[in-house]
Amino acid sequence: MGKGRLEAFSDGVLAIIITIMVLEIKVPHGDNPEDLKPLLPIFISYVLSFIYIGIYWNNHHHLMHAVTKVSGSVLWSNIHLLFWLSLVPFATAWMGENHFSKWPVILYGFILMMAGVSYYILAHCLTGIHGKDSLLAKAIGNDRKGIASIILYITGIGCSFINPWIGFSIYVIVAAIWFIPDRRIEKKIENNHREQQ
Amino acid sequence: MGKGRLEAFSDGVLAIIITIMVLEIKVPHGDNPEDLKPLLPIFISYVLSFIYIGIYWNNHHHLMHAVTKVSGSVLWSNIHLLFWLSLVPFATAWMGENHFSKWPVILYGFILMMAGVSYYILAHCLTGIHGKDSLLAKAIGNDRKGIASIILYITGIGCSFINPWIGFSIYVIVAAIWFIPDRRIEKKIENNHREQQ
Amino acid sequence: MGKGRLEAFSDGVLAIIITIMVLEIKVPHGDNPEDLKPLLPIFISYVLSFIYIGIYWNNHHHLMHAVTKVSGSVLWSNIHLLFWLSLVPFATAWMGENHFSKWPVILYGFILMMAGVSYYILAHCLTGIHGKDSLLAKAIGNDRKGIASIILYITGIGCSFINPWIGFSIYVIVAAIWFIPDRRIEKKIENNHREQQ
Amino acid sequence: MGKGRLEAFSDGVLAIIITIMVLEIKVPHGDNPEDLKPLLPIFISYVLSFIYIGIYWNNHHHLMHAVTKVSGSVLWSNIHLLFWLSLVPFATAWMGENHFSKWPVILYGFILMMAGVSYYILAHCLTGIHGKDSLLAKAIGNDRKGIASIILYITGIGCSFINPWIGFSIYVIVAAIWFIPDRRIEKKIENNHREQQ
Repeated sequence: MGKGRLEAFSDGVLAIIITIMVLEIKVPHGDNPEDLKPLLPIFISYVLSFIYIGIYWNNHHHLMHAVTKVSGSVLWSNIHLLFWLSLVPFATAWMGENHFSKWPVILYGFILMMAGVSYYILAHCLTGIHGKDSLLAKAIGNDRKGIASIILYITGIGCSFINPWIGFSIYVIVAAIWFIPDRRIEKKIENNHREQQ
Repeated sequence: MGKGRLEAFSDGVLAIIITIMVLEIKVPHGDNPEDLKPLLPIFISYVLSFIYIGIYWNNHHHLMHAVTKVSGSVLWSNIHLLFWLSLVPFATAWMGENHFSKWPVILYGFILMMAGVSYYILAHCLTGIHGKDSLLAKAIGNDRKGIASIILYITGIGCSFINPWIGFSIYVIVAAIWFIPDRRIEKKIENNHREQQ
Repeated sequence: MGKGRLEAFSDGVLAIIITIMVLEIKVPHGDNPEDLKPLLPIFISYVLSFIYIGIYWNNHHHLMHAVTKVSGSVLWSNIHLLFWLSLVPFATAWMGENHFSKWPVILYGFILMMAGVSYYILAHCLTGIHGKDSLLAKAIGNDRKGIASIILYITGIGCSFINPWIGFSIYVIVAAIWFIPDRRIEKKIENNHREQQ
Repeated sequence: MGKGRLEAFSDGVLAIIITIMVLEIKVPHGDNPEDLKPLLPIFISYVLSFIYIGIYWNNHHHLMHAVTKVSGSVLWSNIHLLFWLSLVPFATAWMGENHFSKWPVILYGFILMMAGVSYYILAHCLTGIHGKDSLLAKAIGNDRKGIASIILYITGIGCSFINPWIGFSIYVIVAAIWFIPDRRIEKKIENNHREQQ
């Protein structure tokens, strides 16, 4: 079974998620810069979510690059990941419209956390069918970055009960960590190519 | 005639259907967990529909995998299937907003049933052009699962006249049955590969 | 220059057009079958437009199948076609919400006519770069079907001034004519394959 | 690392952007031609944005055609470009609804300028990894057209402070300049093919 359609379907869903979020930035009635001001928090949460979906697409791209086969459980792990990411536009809009108040920031963090968990499941589902000695398994390794970000999301959710801005800042930090694409896989593949030559 | 664009178009439509449903979960004005409560039935129907579209994508993937050629009637059978699936977001929203009351649950079941019937037509249209002895025909077999789920949808619609929750439960059961990807095709292909070696 | 991305982009746009039209069928507040009644004209226009977009995707598929190269003017002819098709959801909603009254039916016909004209331009742009003796040119021939449907659209628009239902009926007839996929190309390719053997 | 998914994701996002803009053309309640009149400015801004997204897709197509490899920074440069283009529907609707008044025209120009800048970054990021003597680098050359259009955008923004129609006219001129696909790359590739023969 090929990975082509899994990539195509994921690309489609991620492309739609990243684009429909903009529909939540409602066009104001006035035509002055001041009329755009109330949209600022919505815009900020849009930017963060855009980067997050970009990160997921990027890492999905890198992950799938090292994949040679897929199974039924991989297909469903992938749909599971897409499910949590599909809730990002809702959480983004709720957080933006309520100016980063407590509960919306907590929900946003919860959805990011669940997306992180489902990405972790997908990655381990893939290493399961490729074997422990596969290029993919070596590339992912013990997946410290994935586990660290889940812990950071939980910390962010916890801190949001005290002050949602701390929680929000932690989500920004996780995005910054992942912004750098998953070079582990890229490197391993390069090394592998060199060794084979 | 290749199957590439049929897969690409179907992936696109399914990706959009699965994603635009989230637009029906309207962002509440308040920022408390209680403000999310009224969204619970809408969210539940969203989850079920997400799984259903996931199932259709998954089975479509498996079905097309064994396909080697397509015809004009295959293209239209496929568009027919996509038509019924395109009505899922509407039925999902109507069912969720009316808290699973009688008529919306019946309509939801009717659309699932029509999608099931059109998938059946598509599968048999494909076996028609591949021949009775083809890998595809053997893999689909007498399609007991497809017929059973259509009967279950009709049962669910009938039971909804008495109590819509019974109907809804039956739709959940059908989803559970199909959640396991269509292993028939996967197995047949594997066996075929082994025999050829 | 390959035709791959032209197909991918067109598939994407057509998949979105065919799916977002469903967003115009607003979920009613009541939960009775009578609450669905006012949606009937919107639903009928949705079905017709769904079939039309299906026809365009189908014929685009057949047309591109015989194509071996594309040029800058082909890319723009294709975007021109997509432009008119992108207005179909608007015209569909306007026609449905106004119960097939005069001006909406005329606008719907006008947009169908412009889509027909731009498809004609695209086809002739393609035969231009493939040459008069190409498989594609032979397959399209004098394109009687394309010209006939444009004349029928104009007739439909004209008749709508007297009675919009006559106009609407003519649009249904054109859809019925095109519903049968463009067998000309399919046949020519088959014949060509046979001759080569 | 292949360019396939980068193209697929970009095609998906551009296809959605170009299509969801039509959702901003709200269906009027009346059914007379006069009821469409207030939509005229919205329609005009829709047409211009449709052409702009068409231009970006077209040039992206030509640019990627000469690309043989991608890197992490290319993926992010591409997402950066898509980010600015994703704001086009918002700016289009704001400009159209306010009948091309000062600030909306300035914002529209600013977003076009940022898209132009990010396209420039993407192109130079690609030449960076392909080398100065690569086909791609030669084809893009000193990118006079890209720099000229950024200067024109800035001029347009400046002129909008005096009269927004001058600004709008300049954006139309830039679109007209780019409407002609980037023949530089096409030509270089053709010449290269000839030299190799």
